[in-house]
Amino acid sequence: MKLQVALDTLTLDECVHLLEEIRGDTDIAEVGTPFIIEEGMRPVRELKKRFPELEILADAKIMDAGEYEAEKCFSAGADIVTVLGAANDATIEGVVRAAKRYGKKVMADMIEVSDLEKRAGEIDGLGVDYICVHTAWDVQNTGKNPLDDLITVNKVLKKAQSAVAGGVKLSTAEPIAKEHPSVVVVGGGIIHAQNRKETAGKIKEILRRGASCE
Amino acid sequence: MKLQVALDTLTLDECVHLLEEIRGDTDIAEVGTPFIIEEGMRPVRELKKRFPELEILADAKIMDAGEYEAEKCFSAGADIVTVLGAANDATIEGVVRAAKRYGKKVMADMIEVSDLEKRAGEIDGLGVDYICVHTAWDVQNTGKNPLDDLITVNKVLKKAQSAVAGGVKLSTAEPIAKEHPSVVVVGGGIIHAQNRKETAGKIKEILRRGASCE
Repeated sequence: MKLQVALDTLTLDECVHLLEEIRGDTDIAEVGTPFIIEEGMRPVRELKKRFPELEILADAKIMDAGEYEAEKCFSAGADIVTVLGAANDATIEGVVRAAKRYGKKVMADMIEVSDLEKRAGEIDGLGVDYICVHTAWDVQNTGKNPLDDLITVNKVLKKAQSAVAGGVKLSTAEPIAKEHPSVVVVGGGIIHAQNRKETAGKIKEILRRGASCE
Repeated sequence: MKLQVALDTLTLDECVHLLEEIRGDTDIAEVGTPFIIEEGMRPVRELKKRFPELEILADAKIMDAGEYEAEKCFSAGADIVTVLGAANDATIEGVVRAAKRYGKKVMADMIEVSDLEKRAGEIDGLGVDYICVHTAWDVQNTGKNPLDDLITVNKVLKKAQSAVAGGVKLSTAEPIAKEHPSVVVVGGGIIHAQNRKETAGKIKEILRRGASCE
């Protein structure tokens, strides 16, 4: 199980500082959507250069022009690009084509997909690497969390691996790890922790233990 | 009826050149999603500075963290920001809150929304300024076009104004203008035209004539 740290609300310097602090416990550094809206592909290029040992995920949440937009991310150095599960199949297939050309990966973000089970099954056949259940940030205060969605998707997937995002933190990592997603995304749960290094280490340890039981 | 020119596949210099060429016939300059993915808010800042007489639309296609992401666009100088119709109501409401704070506007992009009539009706009550029917670029080669969707949405809207995007060009502008959307978005239909100035002028003239019949 990989730990993906979502870098959403930090400046590039703060990201570099955080990634240095939690070195060894992170597998994937996510350049978050607001970060891309602000800075484009610059953080992808910079983080790839500074942290060649990490996979860099560009959370572009592609909704159209799949091949064209994904190409921009992969050519900047992204190892993984996100496409929305709500996008048309043709868009997802375009992102997959671009990924294959670069030997890189695609994560479908299932945020706000209404029939999760049905759509996960459809997307599983389109060649994406990960299908990520995702509780929107804007609804996390309603108490919704992505664990049930993870269980739903895990029953459906035959080819893609599952990933999980949306308010995951140290206190909720254990039950999630028991469902064995391939990637667990944590943002505020690490960024806003009192001791970020210790928290990232503990979460990574929970994922390691979960993986060892597989 | 306003003409919005979608700047998707050009460099910033090429955009400036095009906008100078078609000056007087354009109302809204759209900084397209791939452009934002590549460069972030830089083109929004630059175009706002160079063309203060135009409205600048940031096609961020926001799907989560509505208020936070929209704030980034408005603070960079965007006059209009897009949010996906597929997003959660809470996200759309967040974008609307940010817009009100800046005295700016919100366009909901209905791309890939399955029950267009129902969702347009719901979003109409959330305070957005425009609801834009949008045939995805990735499916335009199937012959699908947004005219029928425009007719559907126009029947539903009570507060928001309609907009239309997705492969509109000189040869298809007339029937669209007859439905009186408030904004007509044209990308490749102008960018790839042999004579871009003449084409933009002719499309704008069709929209002017349509508007005068209202």
